[in-house]
Amino acid sequence: MAHISLPEEYPGIRGPMMFRPETARPLNELVEVLLRHDHSLTRGERELIATYVSARNDCTYCQTIHGAVAAHHLGGNEELVESVKCDVENAAISEKMKALLAIAGKVQISGKLVTTEDVEKARAQGATDLEIHDTVLIAAMFCLCNRYVDGLATWAPEDPDFYRKRAELIATQGYTQSTIAALA
Amino acid sequence: MAHISLPEEYPGIRGPMMFRPETARPLNELVEVLLRHDHSLTRGERELIATYVSARNDCTYCQTIHGAVAAHHLGGNEELVESVKCDVENAAISEKMKALLAIAGKVQISGKLVTTEDVEKARAQGATDLEIHDTVLIAAMFCLCNRYVDGLATWAPEDPDFYRKRAELIATQGYTQSTIAALA
Repeated sequence: MAHISLPEEYPGIRGPMMFRPETARPLNELVEVLLRHDHSLTRGERELIATYVSARNDCTYCQTIHGAVAAHHLGGNEELVESVKCDVENAAISEKMKALLAIAGKVQISGKLVTTEDVEKARAQGATDLEIHDTVLIAAMFCLCNRYVDGLATWAPEDPDFYRKRAELIATQGYTQSTIAALA
Repeated sequence: MAHISLPEEYPGIRGPMMFRPETARPLNELVEVLLRHDHSLTRGERELIATYVSARNDCTYCQTIHGAVAAHHLGGNEELVESVKCDVENAAISEKMKALLAIAGKVQISGKLVTTEDVEKARAQGATDLEIHDTVLIAAMFCLCNRYVDGLATWAPEDPDFYRKRAELIATQGYTQSTIAALA
């Protein structure tokens, strides 16, 4: 049971978002810009960063929903998402993505761990300032989301199909719209 | 030197905010709602939560600027802010604030550490669901901000007067307005 009284039909971050729409609005807007707006990193790649950080923070709801959205954008390739979570070095992703995930993994512990060498490695693989910036901010953002979801002891569905269906809705409508629809 | 090319005249989070106004907007809106909108916790109390978490994450810029804003709202009482950072058990704050800071301190490490007993202790001191929710979200938000500021290796002024002056501006204009003014 959640630590505070939340509408029970909404799992994960959606419970607290229903409880506090004033903070849900900028939270969703931030995720929408970071994960969905036009970018040199694909939506699939950005969702992989969110999934990777959420898995490292052991947040069931976030890693499962963003893993499902990542898989949706990656042609349904759930194995690729699993390999990024469990064995990133051998995952079938670009060297640039591996370098960016290394930065995200350090941010997950502490921003202070990111070194000039980490950033140079990413740059050597073609990463731009914007890609490095957004990798750091996506990683930091999911350190927020994971703590918000688990700090209030929200619940997470067990059925993988729940996440696949929700991922389809998010991929079609986006984060802002799918929340507004629920609030209406 | 910062890890990416940022406008050098802006310290801390303001450099990356100038670099990426699309994400600065929802970030500032979220901080504005959490730390400044009407609430049963005072602005000083909410800034203390932000300061406490930022100190635990060892983020120089965030703990100093929010410590200065907290002191501003607390009648200039910089000693109180220091005591919350260094010796919270003996700080001259309410028992409710101590219980909320205990929750914030756990969220700073991991949301999973917050127990039913932590929440019951806060409730026994009169904390409401909204206060518990916002404590968790403020703590989570500053886990984002601290990682954003340090993960990009931004710089922090050393002169305490810099923060006192900036705190006055923030206290008068708010987070959104003081950033918009700089962007204009």
